[in-house]
Amino acid sequence: MMRTRPLKVALLGCGVVGSEVARIMTTHADDLAARVGAPVELAGIAVRRPGRVREGVPSELVTTDATALVKRGDIDVVIEVIGGIEPARSLITTAFEHGASVVSANKALLAEDGAALHAAAEQHGADLYYEAAVAGAIPLVRPLRESLAGDKVNRVLGIVNGTTNFILDRMDTSGAGYSEALDEATALGYAEADPTADVEGFDAAAKAAILAGIAFHTRVTIADVHREGITEVTAADIASAKRMGCTVKLLAICERAADGRSVTARVHPAMIPLSHPLASVREAYNAVFIEAEAAGRLMFYGPGAGGSPTASAVLGDLVAVSRNKLNDATGPGESAYTRLPVSHMGEVVTRYHISLDVADKPGVLAQVAMVFAEHDVSIDTVRQQAKEHFSGAVGASVEGGGGRREGGEASLVVVTHRAPDAALTATVEALRALDTVRGVASIMRVEGE
Amino acid sequence: MMRTRPLKVALLGCGVVGSEVARIMTTHADDLAARVGAPVELAGIAVRRPGRVREGVPSELVTTDATALVKRGDIDVVIEVIGGIEPARSLITTAFEHGASVVSANKALLAEDGAALHAAAEQHGADLYYEAAVAGAIPLVRPLRESLAGDKVNRVLGIVNGTTNFILDRMDTSGAGYSEALDEATALGYAEADPTADVEGFDAAAKAAILAGIAFHTRVTIADVHREGITEVTAADIASAKRMGCTVKLLAICERAADGRSVTARVHPAMIPLSHPLASVREAYNAVFIEAEAAGRLMFYGPGAGGSPTASAVLGDLVAVSRNKLNDATGPGESAYTRLPVSHMGEVVTRYHISLDVADKPGVLAQVAMVFAEHDVSIDTVRQQAKEHFSGAVGASVEGGGGRREGGEASLVVVTHRAPDAALTATVEALRALDTVRGVASIMRVEGE
Repeated sequence: MMRTRPLKVALLGCGVVGSEVARIMTTHADDLAARVGAPVELAGIAVRRPGRVREGVPSELVTTDATALVKRGDIDVVIEVIGGIEPARSLITTAFEHGASVVSANKALLAEDGAALHAAAEQHGADLYYEAAVAGAIPLVRPLRESLAGDKVNRVLGIVNGTTNFILDRMDTSGAGYSEALDEATALGYAEADPTADVEGFDAAAKAAILAGIAFHTRVTIADVHREGITEVTAADIASAKRMGCTVKLLAICERAADGRSVTARVHPAMIPLSHPLASVREAYNAVFIEAEAAGRLMFYGPGAGGSPTASAVLGDLVAVSRNKLNDATGPGESAYTRLPVSHMGEVVTRYHISLDVADKPGVLAQVAMVFAEHDVSIDTVRQQAKEHFSGAVGASVEGGGGRREGGEASLVVVTHRAPDAALTATVEALRALDTVRGVASIMRVEGE
Repeated sequence: MMRTRPLKVALLGCGVVGSEVARIMTTHADDLAARVGAPVELAGIAVRRPGRVREGVPSELVTTDATALVKRGDIDVVIEVIGGIEPARSLITTAFEHGASVVSANKALLAEDGAALHAAAEQHGADLYYEAAVAGAIPLVRPLRESLAGDKVNRVLGIVNGTTNFILDRMDTSGAGYSEALDEATALGYAEADPTADVEGFDAAAKAAILAGIAFHTRVTIADVHREGITEVTAADIASAKRMGCTVKLLAICERAADGRSVTARVHPAMIPLSHPLASVREAYNAVFIEAEAAGRLMFYGPGAGGSPTASAVLGDLVAVSRNKLNDATGPGESAYTRLPVSHMGEVVTRYHISLDVADKPGVLAQVAMVFAEHDVSIDTVRQQAKEHFSGAVGASVEGGGGRREGGEASLVVVTHRAPDAALTATVEALRALDTVRGVASIMRVEGE
């Protein structure tokens, strides 16, 4: 039984994702209608620059007045693929006020102001779906919100930014430095002209906030997420990781504390063992591990960005939201009942890989070990080498030359056991203050073990 | 706002999965209530042998009269984890008739009679959810039914049976034969006393039928699925795969034909390249690739069986179905509008790896090549070797001895290009009929390229 009145959809934004959404809605209209139970009609497309509208997008639907479009009153679903905070937030709020449900791909907005948007949706009996905001076409929001709704998620660990994964993968594969790899990513279209949001970890941090909130049924905003980008990752770090049987990845990590009373969310580069499935995630792909009490460890893998994959996620949500409309029902809204606080990075328990340039003389190791002990940080392994033995392997950041002699330099690589991040940070500061420590060549967390 | 009247749940079956469902419903009752929006109460547990009820399962709820339980009239949701066709089918139907929605883990029943069950659910305005029927805790049914509802799935390729993956993994790792690896799987609890459903591919075929039906929006039953188990996989096959840079996996493959007018579903052992992500799925884990037009290639990985993971999937469905109940709505039902026919195996386009024992004399290769050509099967590679050169590597199935001499034996390993399976089967039959072909040592399809 097909309802005769079609559901009307307003599309806000017609860039890479929006034009693909419009194209699929047009070419696959019959399939969408069959799956929803009613025709789903594109009723208007709001753009900033009407001259730029792409091939296959019905030009008679294009308008520059997004506000008027969402206020029309006959719109059932608004798809927001503009991105950014404003005008997206106002438009979404206006859409709810005028009876529409919303499908959004806007990670920045959801990570900053998700709670207010969810509240507005609930107030107006509307849906807010946003699978496309996290990791493109990879289903993550729905599995966390629905498939694992009867389980207790303890950890989410993943590669959620394709640009940085591409850069780190190139650095790992070719031995290139960060700038060189970034240039390649830009040339190939994997990095934007201004790559800040990606390489400084803002994009991944927004996704971490969204995932943590859903996973732990609490509120997490991007301001709660500890964030370090990849701009300081050096060829020497990658080489150092390789010697440990590891690779370097930019990870988003959301964890429930061991006592269950708080959660943490963080984004930073980390070494992970080559045997870990995330180590083999190449190029711009994304992959996310979810560890749940009953389900065990699940992994989700796929293209994390791009017009078509993101459009796929948007359209999946469009079908769900449209069905809900027909049922006069709404899907799951915000679930933040646990009200678990988000702890600071200092309380996260992690491991450090620290590479020190030290004076090559007796007693240095003892001195360094004492600093660790004073901070209650237990050492897992230490590797001590005079510089000339491995300068080739370490690469550009380590100065060559200098035989093993009194007054020369050696390198000390320390891998710690798990300890609070604050203790590890304080240890590193204390090490820097030692006379015998000439410099800290590399500090990186170790994950995935 | 919490509704006061709790939702009442009847649990049918209290084995490995059921007892875990009961335990989590009891220990995590507050979380479930918060996520559903109303308390969810276990109202009765039907078992065959009440004496066997496990620790943590409330014994006062136990009954042996499953029919009376589903007929009580106050049951909102029935969880069916009995398995098998009857009495599960009658109990589910009765549950719908009495106003309950159903969560089932019963792959055999859904693959045999899913359409009738869906029709009964729809007739009574009830939900039928069954995430747990396919690959334990790995979300697959929901992503296919909902996340990819706006996309066009072209292929599902996966390892969906843990027992057989464990056996093949052991054969690959240790060089063991099938019987030896099966014994180990049985001893470790990965295989049941009667392993037929697993090793003959029935379990995987049921899952393939369910996945194909959802993926292609058509009806596929287990009778439509071409099925070959792993009982005839030999150590020589595994060794042969290794020489090709491959490993052997039992794959479930659901494909849309190139012309889009039909679909196929099959389960059989196949060689896949070691570089393929499915090659690294070890032990009893499951993993499924989904290829969709817009989303690209997605992979889902996790524990495919076991009490806790399966319970996680059941409880996720329980939350969804309970929410629907509170909303007086139903989730997505059967979507079979494409009515695409299921083609026979003969029409599947695939590649063969064929290992022949042939007479070691001039002209044999030409004769063999002619047979392929006559069947329009194009050869990708041929490797020809006198027996003594590689008898060690091939292992037990190849008899040792015999230098390269007129009248001796050689081995011919042929890998074909893609061709209809019927043509490949006919080619093999014709090869068997050749005087110079002493035997067909191994035939296996090649996938994942």
